[in-house]
Amino acid sequence: MTSLAAYNGEQIDLLAAVNDDHGGVIVELKAPIDPRAFEMSLKLSIWSWRQQGIKGVWIKLPIELASLVQIIVKEGFWYHHAEPNYLMLVYWIPATEHTIPSNATHRVGVGAFVVNDRKEILVVQEKSGKLRGLGFWKIPTGVINQGEDLFTGVMREVKEETGIDTEFVEVLAFRQSHQSFFEKSDLFFLCMLRPLSFVIQMQESEIEAAKWMPIEEYTADPLVQKHEFAKYILNVGIAKVEKRYSGFYPVCIQSAFADEQSYFYVNSRDLEQKSSSANESNSS
Amino acid sequence: MTSLAAYNGEQIDLLAAVNDDHGGVIVELKAPIDPRAFEMSLKLSIWSWRQQGIKGVWIKLPIELASLVQIIVKEGFWYHHAEPNYLMLVYWIPATEHTIPSNATHRVGVGAFVVNDRKEILVVQEKSGKLRGLGFWKIPTGVINQGEDLFTGVMREVKEETGIDTEFVEVLAFRQSHQSFFEKSDLFFLCMLRPLSFVIQMQESEIEAAKWMPIEEYTADPLVQKHEFAKYILNVGIAKVEKRYSGFYPVCIQSAFADEQSYFYVNSRDLEQKSSSANESNSS
Repeated sequence: MTSLAAYNGEQIDLLAAVNDDHGGVIVELKAPIDPRAFEMSLKLSIWSWRQQGIKGVWIKLPIELASLVQIIVKEGFWYHHAEPNYLMLVYWIPATEHTIPSNATHRVGVGAFVVNDRKEILVVQEKSGKLRGLGFWKIPTGVINQGEDLFTGVMREVKEETGIDTEFVEVLAFRQSHQSFFEKSDLFFLCMLRPLSFVIQMQESEIEAAKWMPIEEYTADPLVQKHEFAKYILNVGIAKVEKRYSGFYPVCIQSAFADEQSYFYVNSRDLEQKSSSANESNSS
Repeated sequence: MTSLAAYNGEQIDLLAAVNDDHGGVIVELKAPIDPRAFEMSLKLSIWSWRQQGIKGVWIKLPIELASLVQIIVKEGFWYHHAEPNYLMLVYWIPATEHTIPSNATHRVGVGAFVVNDRKEILVVQEKSGKLRGLGFWKIPTGVINQGEDLFTGVMREVKEETGIDTEFVEVLAFRQSHQSFFEKSDLFFLCMLRPLSFVIQMQESEIEAAKWMPIEEYTADPLVQKHEFAKYILNVGIAKVEKRYSGFYPVCIQSAFADEQSYFYVNSRDLEQKSSSANESNSS
Protein backbone atom coordinates (compact mmCIF):
# COMPACT_ATOMS: atom_id res chain seq x y z
CA MET A 1 0.00 0.00 0.00
CA THR A 2 1.05 3.59 -0.59
CA SER A 3 0.86 5.97 2.34
CA LEU A 4 -0.69 9.28 1.32
CA ALA A 5 -2.31 10.90 4.29
CA ALA A 6 -2.59 10.81 8.03
CA TYR A 7 -5.59 10.75 10.30
CA ASN A 8 -5.34 11.49 14.02
CA GLY A 9 -1.60 11.09 13.76
CA GLU A 10 -1.96 7.64 12.18
CA GLN A 11 -0.78 6.89 8.72
CA ILE A 12 -3.48 6.03 6.18
CA ASP A 13 -2.57 3.76 3.28
CA LEU A 14 -4.14 3.61 -0.16
CA LEU A 15 -5.58 0.20 -1.06
CA ALA A 16 -3.48 -1.74 -3.56
CA ALA A 17 -5.36 -1.98 -6.87
CA VAL A 18 -4.78 -3.13 -10.43
CA ASN A 19 -6.40 -1.60 -13.51
CA ASP A 20 -9.01 -3.49 -15.54
CA ASP A 21 -9.72 -3.23 -19.31
CA HIS A 22 -12.58 -0.76 -18.85
CA GLY A 23 -11.12 2.21 -16.96
CA GLY A 24 -11.73 0.66 -13.55
CA VAL A 25 -9.67 -0.85 -10.76
CA ILE A 26 -9.76 -4.18 -8.93
CA VAL A 27 -8.84 -4.48 -5.24
CA GLU A 28 -8.18 -7.96 -3.93
CA LEU A 29 -8.10 -8.03 -0.14
CA LYS A 30 -6.16 -10.93 1.30
CA ALA A 31 -4.72 -10.25 4.73
CA PRO A 32 -6.77 -9.39 7.81
CA ILE A 33 -6.90 -5.64 8.44
CA ASP A 34 -8.17 -3.50 11.30
CA PRO A 35 -11.73 -2.43 10.37
CA ARG A 36 -11.21 1.25 11.27
CA ALA A 37 -7.91 1.47 9.38
CA PHE A 38 -9.60 -0.26 6.42
CA GLU A 39 -12.48 2.22 6.45
CA MET A 40 -10.09 5.19 6.32
CA SER A 41 -8.02 3.56 3.54
CA LEU A 42 -11.15 2.87 1.51
CA LYS A 43 -12.40 6.47 1.81
CA LEU A 44 -8.99 7.86 0.86
CA SER A 45 -8.65 5.43 -2.05
CA ILE A 46 -12.06 6.36 -3.48
CA TRP A 47 -11.06 10.05 -3.26
CA SER A 48 -7.81 9.26 -5.06
CA TRP A 49 -9.49 7.14 -7.77
CA ARG A 50 -12.03 9.91 -8.38
CA GLN A 51 -9.14 12.36 -9.01
CA GLN A 52 -7.72 9.88 -11.54
CA GLY A 53 -11.01 9.51 -13.42
CA ILE A 54 -11.42 5.85 -12.46
CA LYS A 55 -14.92 4.51 -13.24
CA GLY A 56 -15.72 1.11 -11.70
CA VAL A 57 -14.15 -0.14 -8.47
CA TRP A 58 -14.19 -3.88 -7.71
CA ILE A 59 -13.40 -5.29 -4.27
CA LYS A 60 -12.88 -9.04 -3.95
CA LEU A 61 -13.33 -9.95 -0.29
CA PRO A 62 -12.51 -13.44 1.01
CA ILE A 63 -15.12 -14.97 3.32
CA GLU A 64 -12.63 -14.82 6.20
CA LEU A 65 -12.94 -11.00 6.06
CA ALA A 66 -16.77 -11.03 6.22
CA SER A 67 -16.63 -8.46 9.02
CA LEU A 68 -15.62 -5.81 6.43
CA VAL A 69 -18.73 -6.28 4.25
CA GLN A 70 -20.81 -3.69 6.10
CA ILE A 71 -18.01 -1.08 5.92
CA ILE A 72 -17.74 -1.48 2.13
CA VAL A 73 -21.52 -1.39 1.68
CA LYS A 74 -21.70 1.81 3.77
CA GLU A 75 -19.42 3.52 1.21
CA GLY A 76 -22.00 2.86 -1.51
CA PHE A 77 -20.77 -0.45 -2.93
CA TRP A 78 -23.24 -3.15 -3.95
CA TYR A 79 -22.88 -6.91 -4.42
CA HIS A 80 -21.81 -8.10 -7.84
CA HIS A 81 -21.42 -11.84 -7.32
CA ALA A 82 -20.29 -14.38 -4.76
CA GLU A 83 -18.59 -17.73 -4.81
CA PRO A 84 -18.31 -20.08 -1.81
CA ASN A 85 -15.14 -18.42 -0.53
CA TYR A 86 -15.44 -14.78 -1.57
CA LEU A 87 -17.79 -11.87 -2.21
CA MET A 88 -17.27 -9.40 -5.07
CA LEU A 89 -18.49 -5.88 -4.42
CA VAL A 90 -18.57 -3.06 -6.94
CA TYR A 91 -18.92 0.74 -6.98
CA TRP A 92 -19.25 3.26 -9.80
CA ILE A 93 -17.46 6.57 -9.22
CA PRO A 94 -18.71 8.82 -12.08
CA ALA A 95 -22.05 10.62 -11.83
CA THR A 96 -23.18 8.83 -15.02
CA GLU A 97 -25.17 5.60 -15.16
CA HIS A 98 -22.90 2.60 -14.56
CA THR A 99 -21.87 0.14 -17.26
CA ILE A 100 -20.83 -2.63 -14.87
CA PRO A 101 -21.50 -5.95 -16.64
CA SER A 102 -24.05 -8.18 -15.03
CA ASN A 103 -23.18 -11.31 -13.15
CA ALA A 104 -23.45 -14.81 -14.63
CA THR A 105 -27.13 -15.33 -15.42
CA HIS A 106 -27.41 -18.96 -16.48
CA ARG A 107 -26.91 -22.40 -15.09
CA VAL A 108 -26.06 -24.91 -17.80
CA GLY A 109 -27.58 -28.36 -17.80
CA VAL A 110 -27.14 -31.29 -20.13
CA GLY A 111 -29.27 -34.26 -21.06
CA ALA A 112 -27.97 -37.39 -22.78
CA PHE A 113 -29.87 -39.26 -25.49
CA VAL A 114 -28.02 -42.60 -25.50
CA VAL A 115 -29.30 -45.40 -27.73
CA ASN A 116 -27.61 -48.78 -28.14
CA ASP A 117 -27.47 -51.13 -31.13
CA ARG A 118 -30.67 -52.86 -29.95
CA LYS A 119 -32.56 -49.54 -30.29
CA GLU A 120 -32.83 -49.24 -26.52
CA ILE A 121 -32.59 -45.87 -24.81
CA LEU A 122 -30.74 -45.30 -21.53
CA VAL A 123 -33.22 -44.02 -18.91
CA VAL A 124 -33.15 -43.34 -15.17
CA GLN A 125 -35.44 -42.46 -12.27
CA GLU A 126 -34.17 -39.79 -9.88
CA LYS A 127 -34.23 -39.84 -6.08
CA SER A 128 -34.83 -36.10 -5.63
CA GLY A 129 -36.30 -33.18 -7.51
CA LYS A 130 -39.76 -32.57 -8.91
CA LEU A 131 -40.00 -35.97 -10.61
CA ARG A 132 -39.10 -38.10 -7.58
CA GLY A 133 -41.48 -40.91 -6.67
CA LEU A 134 -43.60 -40.54 -9.82
CA GLY A 135 -42.12 -43.55 -11.63
CA PHE A 136 -41.06 -41.23 -14.41
CA TRP A 137 -38.30 -42.58 -16.66
CA LYS A 138 -36.12 -39.82 -18.06
CA ILE A 139 -32.84 -39.46 -19.91
CA PRO A 140 -29.76 -38.88 -17.68
CA THR A 141 -29.32 -35.18 -16.98
CA GLY A 142 -27.05 -33.03 -14.88
CA VAL A 143 -25.48 -29.66 -14.34
CA ILE A 144 -22.18 -28.56 -15.90
CA ASN A 145 -19.40 -27.81 -13.42
CA GLN A 146 -17.64 -24.48 -13.36
CA GLY A 147 -15.13 -24.42 -16.21
CA GLU A 148 -16.34 -27.69 -17.74
CA ASP A 149 -17.01 -28.15 -21.45
CA LEU A 150 -20.51 -29.24 -22.45
CA PHE A 151 -19.39 -32.37 -24.25
CA THR A 152 -17.19 -33.40 -21.31
CA GLY A 153 -19.90 -32.68 -18.75
CA VAL A 154 -22.58 -34.73 -20.47
CA MET A 155 -20.31 -37.77 -20.77
CA ARG A 156 -19.32 -37.38 -17.10
CA GLU A 157 -22.96 -37.26 -15.98
CA VAL A 158 -23.85 -40.42 -17.90
CA LYS A 159 -20.83 -42.21 -16.46
CA GLU A 160 -21.65 -41.06 -12.89
CA GLU A 161 -25.36 -41.91 -13.00
CA THR A 162 -25.26 -45.15 -14.98
CA GLY A 163 -21.62 -46.29 -15.31
CA ILE A 164 -21.94 -46.27 -19.11
CA ASP A 165 -18.94 -45.07 -21.15
CA THR A 166 -19.88 -42.95 -24.13
CA GLU A 167 -18.58 -41.00 -27.07
CA PHE A 168 -19.95 -37.53 -27.85
CA VAL A 169 -21.94 -37.25 -31.08
CA GLU A 170 -23.73 -33.88 -31.22
CA VAL A 171 -25.72 -31.20 -29.44
CA LEU A 172 -29.18 -31.92 -30.88
CA ALA A 173 -31.06 -28.93 -29.48
CA PHE A 174 -31.17 -26.66 -26.45
CA ARG A 175 -33.79 -25.06 -24.22
CA GLN A 176 -33.60 -21.69 -22.49
CA SER A 177 -35.89 -21.26 -19.48
CA HIS A 178 -36.17 -18.56 -16.85
CA GLN A 179 -36.65 -18.31 -13.08
CA SER A 180 -35.53 -21.90 -12.82
CA PHE A 181 -33.21 -21.48 -9.84
CA PHE A 182 -33.89 -18.43 -7.70
CA GLU A 183 -33.81 -15.59 -10.28
CA LYS A 184 -31.41 -17.43 -12.57
CA SER A 185 -32.11 -18.83 -16.01
CA ASP A 186 -31.25 -22.23 -17.33
CA LEU A 187 -29.77 -23.44 -20.58
CA PHE A 188 -30.32 -27.15 -21.15
CA PHE A 189 -28.39 -28.85 -23.96
CA LEU A 190 -29.80 -32.09 -25.34
CA CYS A 191 -26.90 -34.21 -26.57
CA MET A 192 -26.63 -37.45 -28.50
CA LEU A 193 -23.99 -39.85 -27.18
CA ARG A 194 -22.91 -43.21 -28.56
CA PRO A 195 -22.61 -45.89 -25.85
CA LEU A 196 -19.25 -47.67 -25.60
CA SER A 197 -20.29 -50.08 -22.85
CA PHE A 198 -23.48 -51.91 -21.96
CA VAL A 199 -23.54 -52.95 -18.27
CA ILE A 200 -25.29 -50.39 -16.05
CA GLN A 201 -23.79 -49.50 -12.66
CA MET A 202 -26.23 -47.18 -10.93
CA GLN A 203 -25.22 -44.24 -8.73
CA GLU A 204 -27.00 -45.16 -5.49
CA SER A 205 -26.95 -41.65 -3.98
CA GLU A 206 -28.95 -39.86 -6.70
CA ILE A 207 -30.53 -42.53 -8.88
CA GLU A 208 -33.49 -44.72 -7.94
CA ALA A 209 -33.36 -46.92 -11.04
CA ALA A 210 -31.58 -47.10 -14.40
CA LYS A 211 -32.09 -49.34 -17.42
CA TRP A 212 -32.04 -49.77 -21.18
CA MET A 213 -35.61 -49.46 -22.46
CA PRO A 214 -36.76 -50.18 -26.04
CA ILE A 215 -37.40 -46.82 -27.74
CA GLU A 216 -40.89 -47.92 -28.75
CA GLU A 217 -41.77 -48.84 -25.18
CA TYR A 218 -40.48 -45.44 -23.97
CA THR A 219 -42.44 -43.61 -26.68
CA ALA A 220 -45.63 -45.39 -25.63
CA ASP A 221 -45.15 -44.66 -21.88
CA PRO A 222 -48.25 -42.71 -20.71
CA LEU A 223 -46.13 -40.45 -18.44
CA VAL A 224 -43.88 -39.54 -21.38
CA GLN A 225 -46.94 -38.98 -23.57
CA LYS A 226 -48.25 -36.45 -21.03
CA HIS A 227 -44.91 -34.64 -20.72
CA GLU A 228 -44.50 -32.20 -23.62
CA PHE A 229 -40.78 -31.64 -23.19
CA ALA A 230 -40.04 -35.39 -22.98
CA LYS A 231 -41.92 -35.80 -26.26
CA TYR A 232 -39.86 -33.04 -27.91
CA ILE A 233 -36.67 -34.72 -26.72
CA LEU A 234 -37.83 -38.06 -28.15
CA ASN A 235 -38.86 -36.48 -31.42
CA VAL A 236 -35.43 -34.93 -31.99
CA GLY A 237 -33.51 -37.93 -30.65
CA ILE A 238 -35.36 -40.40 -32.89
CA ALA A 239 -34.79 -38.15 -35.91
CA LYS A 240 -31.07 -38.35 -35.12
CA VAL A 241 -31.14 -42.13 -34.62
CA GLU A 242 -32.80 -42.39 -38.04
CA LYS A 243 -29.99 -40.21 -39.53
CA ARG A 244 -32.30 -37.49 -40.78
CA TYR A 245 -31.26 -34.78 -38.33
CA SER A 246 -28.14 -32.65 -37.93
CA GLY A 247 -27.21 -30.90 -34.68
CA PHE A 248 -24.09 -28.96 -33.69
CA TYR A 249 -20.62 -30.47 -33.32
CA PRO A 250 -17.78 -28.82 -31.33
CA VAL A 251 -14.78 -27.47 -33.25
CA CYS A 252 -11.78 -26.33 -31.20
CA ILE A 253 -10.73 -22.72 -31.85
CA GLN A 254 -7.83 -20.65 -30.60
CA SER A 255 -8.41 -17.21 -29.13
CA ALA A 256 -6.78 -14.29 -30.95
CA PHE A 257 -5.74 -12.60 -27.70
CA ALA A 258 -4.50 -15.38 -25.47
CA ASP A 259 -3.50 -18.99 -25.67
CA GLU A 260 -7.00 -19.98 -24.60
CA GLN A 261 -9.01 -22.60 -26.39
CA SER A 262 -12.74 -22.72 -26.71
CA TYR A 263 -15.25 -24.82 -28.62
CA PHE A 264 -17.48 -23.55 -31.40
CA TYR A 265 -20.55 -25.76 -31.90
CA VAL A 266 -21.67 -25.73 -35.55
CA ASN A 267 -23.75 -27.72 -37.99
CA SER A 268 -20.65 -29.37 -39.36
CA ARG A 269 -22.59 -31.58 -41.77
CA ASP A 270 -23.87 -28.49 -43.61
CA LEU A 271 -20.44 -26.83 -43.55
CA GLU A 272 -18.79 -29.96 -44.93
CA GLN A 273 -21.38 -30.21 -47.70
CA LYS A 274 -19.95 -26.91 -48.92
CA SER A 275 -16.47 -28.31 -49.38
CA SER A 276 -17.76 -31.53 -50.92
CA SER A 277 -19.88 -29.62 -53.43
CA ALA A 278 -16.89 -27.32 -54.07
CA ASN A 279 -14.77 -30.42 -54.66
CA GLU A 280 -17.39 -31.77 -57.04
CA SER A 281 -17.45 -28.59 -59.07
CA ASN A 282 -13.63 -28.61 -59.09
CA SER A 283 -13.51 -32.14 -60.39
CA SER A 284 -16.26 -31.65 -62.95
CA MET B 1 -41.25 -16.55 14.44
CA THR B 2 -41.97 -19.27 16.97
CA SER B 3 -40.64 -18.79 20.46
CA LEU B 4 -39.03 -21.95 21.78
CA ALA B 5 -36.44 -21.11 24.37
CA ALA B 6 -35.10 -18.37 26.57
CA TYR B 7 -31.58 -17.09 27.12
CA ASN B 8 -30.67 -14.87 30.05
CA GLY B 9 -34.35 -14.33 30.66
CA GLU B 10 -34.89 -13.14 27.09
CA GLN B 11 -37.13 -15.00 24.68
CA ILE B 12 -35.39 -16.58 21.68
CA ASP B 13 -37.38 -17.00 18.49
CA LEU B 14 -36.88 -19.58 15.74
CA LEU B 15 -36.20 -18.08 12.32
CA ALA B 16 -39.15 -18.29 9.95
CA ALA B 17 -38.34 -20.74 7.15
CA VAL B 18 -40.04 -22.44 4.22
CA ASN B 19 -39.20 -25.90 2.90
CA ASP B 20 -37.54 -26.39 -0.48
CA ASP B 21 -37.92 -29.36 -2.90
CA HIS B 22 -34.76 -31.09 -1.67
CA GLY B 23 -35.22 -31.58 2.08
CA GLY B 24 -33.86 -28.15 2.98
CA VAL B 25 -35.21 -24.83 4.25
CA ILE B 26 -35.03 -21.25 2.99
CA VAL B 27 -34.89 -18.29 5.38
CA GLU B 28 -35.58 -14.87 3.91
CA LEU B 29 -34.59 -12.10 6.28
CA LYS B 30 -36.39 -8.86 5.67
CA ALA B 31 -36.70 -6.65 8.76
CA PRO B 32 -33.75 -5.28 10.74
CA ILE B 33 -32.99 -7.42 13.79
CA ASP B 34 -30.69 -6.98 16.78
CA PRO B 35 -27.42 -8.84 15.94
CA ARG B 36 -27.21 -10.64 19.30
CA ALA B 37 -30.86 -11.75 19.18
CA PHE B 38 -30.30 -12.91 15.60
CA GLU B 39 -27.24 -14.93 16.57
CA MET B 40 -29.18 -16.75 19.29
CA SER B 41 -32.13 -17.38 16.95
CA LEU B 42 -29.83 -18.76 14.27
CA LYS B 43 -28.10 -21.15 16.69
CA LEU B 44 -31.46 -22.35 18.06
CA SER B 45 -32.90 -22.75 14.56
CA ILE B 46 -29.95 -24.85 13.36
CA TRP B 47 -30.38 -27.07 16.42
CA SER B 48 -34.07 -27.43 15.64
CA TRP B 49 -33.51 -28.14 11.91
CA ARG B 50 -30.93 -30.78 12.81
CA GLN B 51 -33.55 -32.54 14.99
CA GLN B 52 -35.94 -32.49 12.03
CA GLY B 53 -33.38 -34.01 9.62
CA ILE B 54 -33.18 -30.87 7.49
CA LYS B 55 -30.26 -30.94 5.02
CA GLY B 56 -29.48 -27.62 3.32
CA VAL B 57 -30.22 -24.25 4.91
CA TRP B 58 -30.43 -21.15 2.71
CA ILE B 59 -30.37 -17.61 4.10
CA LYS B 60 -31.27 -14.75 1.78
CA LEU B 61 -29.90 -11.56 3.30
CA PRO B 62 -30.76 -8.13 1.87
CA ILE B 63 -27.81 -5.74 1.48
CA GLU B 64 -29.33 -3.46 4.15
CA LEU B 65 -28.59 -6.22 6.69
CA ALA B 66 -24.90 -6.56 5.68
CA SER B 67 -23.92 -6.30 9.34
CA LEU B 68 -25.28 -9.84 9.88
CA VAL B 69 -23.00 -11.48 7.28
CA GLN B 70 -20.18 -12.18 9.73
CA ILE B 71 -22.56 -13.74 12.28
CA ILE B 72 -23.94 -16.15 9.66
CA VAL B 73 -20.47 -17.02 8.36
CA LYS B 74 -19.30 -17.72 11.93
CA GLU B 75 -21.98 -20.44 12.18
CA GLY B 76 -20.39 -22.27 9.25
CA PHE B 77 -22.39 -20.86 6.31
CA TRP B 78 -20.66 -20.07 3.03
CA TYR B 79 -21.61 -17.79 0.14
CA HIS B 80 -23.78 -19.30 -2.58
CA HIS B 81 -24.46 -16.33 -4.83
CA ALA B 82 -25.12 -12.60 -4.69
CA GLU B 83 -27.19 -10.13 -6.64
CA PRO B 84 -26.87 -6.33 -6.35
CA ASN B 85 -29.31 -6.15 -3.44
CA TYR B 86 -28.87 -9.43 -1.58
CA LEU B 87 -26.46 -12.17 -0.55
CA MET B 88 -27.45 -15.86 -0.46
CA LEU B 89 -25.66 -17.97 2.14
CA VAL B 90 -25.94 -21.70 2.53
CA TYR B 91 -25.15 -24.37 5.13
CA TRP B 92 -25.31 -28.17 5.07
CA ILE B 93 -26.41 -29.79 8.32
CA PRO B 94 -25.78 -33.56 7.76
CA ALA B 95 -22.31 -35.02 8.24
CA THR B 96 -22.38 -36.23 4.61
CA GLU B 97 -20.93 -34.36 1.64
CA HIS B 98 -23.30 -31.59 0.53
CA THR B 99 -25.36 -31.70 -2.66
CA ILE B 100 -26.02 -27.96 -2.84
CA PRO B 101 -26.32 -27.05 -6.54
CA SER B 102 -23.71 -24.67 -7.84
CA ASN B 103 -24.43 -21.07 -8.66
CA ALA B 104 -25.03 -19.78 -12.19
CA THR B 105 -21.83 -20.46 -14.09
CA HIS B 106 -22.31 -18.77 -17.45
CA ARG B 107 -22.83 -15.35 -18.89
CA VAL B 108 -24.72 -15.49 -22.17
CA GLY B 109 -23.70 -13.32 -25.09
CA VAL B 110 -25.16 -12.94 -28.55
CA GLY B 111 -23.76 -11.84 -31.89
CA ALA B 112 -25.86 -10.79 -34.88
CA PHE B 113 -25.06 -11.70 -38.45
CA VAL B 114 -27.23 -9.20 -40.35
CA VAL B 115 -27.00 -9.03 -44.14
CA ASN B 116 -29.14 -6.79 -46.35
CA ASP B 117 -30.40 -7.31 -49.91
CA ARG B 118 -27.25 -5.67 -51.31
CA LYS B 119 -25.12 -8.43 -49.67
CA GLU B 120 -23.77 -5.97 -47.14
CA ILE B 121 -23.08 -7.01 -43.56
CA LEU B 122 -23.85 -4.81 -40.54
CA VAL B 123 -20.59 -4.12 -38.64
CA VAL B 124 -19.52 -1.87 -35.77
CA GLN B 125 -16.41 -0.68 -33.95
CA GLU B 126 -16.60 -0.61 -30.16
CA LYS B 127 -15.48 2.13 -27.79
CA SER B 128 -14.31 -0.16 -25.00
CA GLY B 129 -13.08 -3.70 -24.49
CA LYS B 130 -10.13 -5.55 -25.93
CA LEU B 131 -10.81 -4.47 -29.53
CA ARG B 132 -11.05 -0.71 -28.88
CA GLY B 133 -8.90 1.56 -31.01
CA LEU B 134 -7.73 -1.23 -33.33
CA GLY B 135 -10.01 -0.29 -36.22
CA PHE B 136 -11.51 -3.77 -36.01
CA TRP B 137 -14.94 -4.11 -37.62
CA LYS B 138 -17.08 -6.73 -35.92
CA ILE B 139 -20.67 -7.91 -35.90
CA PRO B 140 -22.90 -6.31 -33.20
CA THR B 141 -22.65 -8.28 -29.97
CA GLY B 142 -23.97 -7.95 -26.46
CA VAL B 143 -24.89 -9.68 -23.23
CA ILE B 144 -28.32 -11.15 -22.49
CA ASN B 145 -30.18 -9.52 -19.61
CA GLN B 146 -31.42 -11.54 -16.67
CA GLY B 147 -34.61 -13.32 -17.73
CA GLU B 148 -34.30 -12.34 -21.40
CA ASP B 149 -34.76 -14.79 -24.27
CA LEU B 150 -31.85 -15.19 -26.68
CA PHE B 151 -33.82 -14.20 -29.76
CA THR B 152 -35.21 -11.12 -28.01
CA GLY B 153 -31.81 -10.11 -26.65
CA VAL B 154 -30.00 -10.26 -29.95
CA MET B 155 -32.65 -8.13 -31.70
CA ARG B 156 -32.49 -5.62 -28.81
CA GLU B 157 -28.69 -5.34 -29.03
CA VAL B 158 -28.77 -4.69 -32.79
CA LYS B 159 -31.46 -2.04 -32.30
CA GLU B 160 -29.54 -0.36 -29.45
CA GLU B 161 -26.15 -0.32 -31.16
CA THR B 162 -27.21 0.47 -34.73
CA GLY B 163 -30.88 1.47 -34.74
CA ILE B 164 -31.66 -1.33 -37.23
CA ASP B 165 -34.94 -3.23 -36.81
CA THR B 166 -34.63 -6.94 -37.43
CA GLU B 167 -36.46 -10.24 -37.56
CA PHE B 168 -34.94 -13.34 -35.93
CA VAL B 169 -33.93 -16.12 -38.33
CA GLU B 170 -31.84 -18.74 -36.49
CA VAL B 171 -29.10 -19.54 -34.00
CA LEU B 172 -26.30 -20.51 -36.40
CA ALA B 173 -23.76 -21.77 -33.89
CA PHE B 174 -22.50 -21.15 -30.37
CA ARG B 175 -19.19 -20.98 -28.55
CA GLN B 176 -18.46 -22.00 -24.98
CA SER B 177 -15.38 -20.41 -23.41
CA HIS B 178 -14.04 -20.39 -19.86
CA GLN B 179 -12.47 -17.92 -17.44
CA SER B 180 -13.92 -15.13 -19.53
CA PHE B 181 -15.22 -12.99 -16.69
CA PHE B 182 -13.59 -13.63 -13.32
CA GLU B 183 -14.03 -17.41 -12.90
CA LYS B 184 -17.21 -17.50 -15.00
CA SER B 185 -17.69 -19.10 -18.39
CA ASP B 186 -19.31 -17.62 -21.42
CA LEU B 187 -21.80 -18.96 -23.95
CA PHE B 188 -21.88 -16.91 -27.12
CA PHE B 189 -24.72 -17.53 -29.58
CA LEU B 190 -24.18 -16.49 -33.18
CA CYS B 191 -27.56 -15.56 -34.67
CA MET B 192 -28.76 -14.71 -38.15
CA LEU B 193 -31.19 -11.78 -38.30
CA ARG B 194 -33.03 -10.34 -41.29
CA PRO B 195 -32.87 -6.51 -41.41
CA LEU B 196 -36.23 -4.71 -41.58
CA SER B 197 -34.76 -1.21 -41.86
CA PHE B 198 -31.70 0.31 -43.52
CA VAL B 199 -30.73 3.66 -41.94
CA ILE B 200 -28.13 3.30 -39.19
CA GLN B 201 -28.48 5.30 -35.98
CA MET B 202 -25.40 4.67 -33.90
CA GLN B 203 -25.35 4.35 -30.12
CA GLU B 204 -22.87 7.12 -29.20
CA SER B 205 -22.05 5.81 -25.72
CA GLU B 206 -20.69 2.40 -26.71
CA ILE B 207 -20.15 2.43 -30.46
CA GLU B 208 -17.32 4.24 -32.27
CA ALA B 209 -18.58 3.51 -35.79
CA ALA B 210 -21.26 1.44 -37.54
CA LYS B 211 -21.91 0.75 -41.22
CA TRP B 212 -23.07 -1.68 -43.90
CA MET B 213 -19.99 -3.24 -45.49
CA PRO B 214 -20.00 -5.46 -48.62
CA ILE B 215 -19.45 -9.07 -47.45
CA GLU B 216 -16.56 -9.48 -49.90
CA GLU B 217 -14.82 -6.39 -48.51
CA TYR B 218 -15.29 -7.69 -44.96
CA THR B 219 -13.98 -11.13 -45.89
CA ALA B 220 -10.85 -9.56 -47.41
CA ASP B 221 -10.17 -7.30 -44.37
CA PRO B 222 -6.63 -8.17 -43.10
CA LEU B 223 -7.74 -7.82 -39.44
CA VAL B 224 -10.59 -10.28 -40.02
CA GLN B 225 -8.24 -12.61 -41.86
CA LYS B 226 -5.96 -12.67 -38.80
CA HIS B 227 -8.83 -13.29 -36.36
CA GLU B 228 -9.72 -16.98 -36.34
CA PHE B 229 -13.08 -16.60 -34.60
CA ALA B 230 -14.19 -13.80 -36.97
CA LYS B 231 -13.38 -16.11 -39.87
CA TYR B 232 -15.45 -18.92 -38.35
CA ILE B 233 -18.37 -16.52 -37.91
CA LEU B 234 -18.08 -15.41 -41.53
CA ASN B 235 -17.83 -18.98 -42.76
CA VAL B 236 -21.06 -20.02 -41.04
CA GLY B 237 -22.88 -16.76 -41.82
CA ILE B 238 -22.05 -16.92 -45.53
CA ALA B 239 -23.17 -20.58 -45.67
CA LYS B 240 -26.51 -19.39 -44.26
CA VAL B 241 -26.77 -16.47 -46.70
CA GLU B 242 -26.19 -18.96 -49.51
CA LYS B 243 -29.00 -21.15 -48.10
CA ARG B 244 -26.82 -24.20 -47.59
CA TYR B 245 -26.80 -24.17 -43.77
CA SER B 246 -29.38 -24.94 -41.12
CA GLY B 247 -29.13 -23.70 -37.53
CA PHE B 248 -31.58 -23.92 -34.63
CA TYR B 249 -34.96 -22.18 -34.50
CA PRO B 250 -36.91 -21.51 -31.24
CA VAL B 251 -40.12 -23.46 -30.64
CA CYS B 252 -42.26 -22.39 -27.67
CA ILE B 253 -43.00 -25.18 -25.19
CA GLN B 254 -45.13 -25.34 -22.10
CA SER B 255 -43.75 -26.69 -18.84
CA ALA B 256 -45.44 -29.79 -17.44
CA PHE B 257 -45.30 -28.49 -13.88
CA ALA B 258 -46.20 -24.83 -14.10
CA ASP B 259 -47.67 -22.37 -16.52
CA GLU B 260 -44.16 -21.36 -17.55
CA GLN B 261 -43.08 -21.12 -21.15
CA SER B 262 -39.63 -21.74 -22.50
CA TYR B 263 -38.04 -21.99 -25.92
CA PHE B 264 -36.56 -25.13 -27.41
CA TYR B 265 -34.04 -24.37 -30.18
CA VAL B 266 -34.00 -27.15 -32.78
CA ASN B 267 -32.96 -27.80 -36.37
CA SER B 268 -36.52 -27.27 -37.54
CA ARG B 269 -35.63 -27.75 -41.21
CA ASP B 270 -34.52 -31.33 -40.53
CA LEU B 271 -37.57 -32.01 -38.32
CA GLU B 272 -39.91 -30.66 -40.98
CA GLN B 273 -38.24 -32.78 -43.67
CA LYS B 274 -39.51 -35.75 -41.70
CA SER B 275 -43.12 -34.72 -42.08
CA SER B 276 -42.67 -33.76 -45.74
CA SER B 277 -41.03 -37.10 -46.53
CA ALA B 278 -43.79 -38.81 -44.52
CA ASN B 279 -46.32 -36.92 -46.60
CA GLU B 280 -44.56 -37.96 -49.76
CA SER B 281 -44.62 -41.61 -48.81
CA ASN B 282 -48.28 -41.23 -47.87
CA SER B 283 -49.16 -39.70 -51.20
CA SER B 284 -47.08 -42.15 -53.25
